[in-house]
Amino acid sequence: MRSDEQAIRGVHSTWIDAVNAGDLARLLVLTTNDVAFLIPGEESSDRDAFSAKFTAAHQQLRIRCDSELMEVVVVGEVAYTRSRDSLAVSPRGDGEERRLAGDRLTIYRKQADGRWLLARDANVLSPVEG
Amino acid sequence: MRSDEQAIRGVHSTWIDAVNAGDLARLLVLTTNDVAFLIPGEESSDRDAFSAKFTAAHQQLRIRCDSELMEVVVVGEVAYTRSRDSLAVSPRGDGEERRLAGDRLTIYRKQADGRWLLARDANVLSPVEG
Repeated sequence: MRSDEQAIRGVHSTWIDAVNAGDLARLLVLTTNDVAFLIPGEESSDRDAFSAKFTAAHQQLRIRCDSELMEVVVVGEVAYTRSRDSLAVSPRGDGEERRLAGDRLTIYRKQADGRWLLARDANVLSPVEG
Repeated sequence: MRSDEQAIRGVHSTWIDAVNAGDLARLLVLTTNDVAFLIPGEESSDRDAFSAKFTAAHQQLRIRCDSELMEVVVVGEVAYTRSRDSLAVSPRGDGEERRLAGDRLTIYRKQADGRWLLARDANVLSPVEG
């Protein structure tokens, strides 16, 4: 039987794969209905706002995200993780690649059926020079 | 008897007052030993790194922080909040005031003695023009 921590590591890994694949449907299956995303320089995004931004971003950009889990803390029906993320984005047409890096704090909620879903996510990614 | 939510609202309010007063000791009483702060453009800070940065910032800057709680979610021994923060910082000597604004995601842990302490905090504050 998988432990909660293993389940959350699985969601994290699936999440990053889906981000890189541009697979919004797979991301939404992994989020709570009241999910909120916090991003520097923008208002918090709910499920609909996140979906619109994600779709627009993948139409315009090639996106490659790497994420290394730094910690997974499970406390009953809630868990939180910290990861170190790096993001490379480049226009689908011509244009330079931009790189961002920084940490991410994510909160997961355990559902009645045992699944862990992403409920809150704050990334503090900022541009990397060079 | 105070509810957990009321207790967390109290910690949030005390936290902002202590930030504005430059009262590091009062902040540290409100944090877990393993606290981590995520800030755009910087590495995560532990208790010692946060203390050093906070002290240096208050020596050089006048800081005024306002924070409005947008949600408080309590799940057993863990709680998380989202707040909308704004920060005005100006040099203690001459110089222009800078303004930052953005959301903050905070995780609190309930202690054996019933106190709620700040365990993780990610702010996505970014500069405000004008």
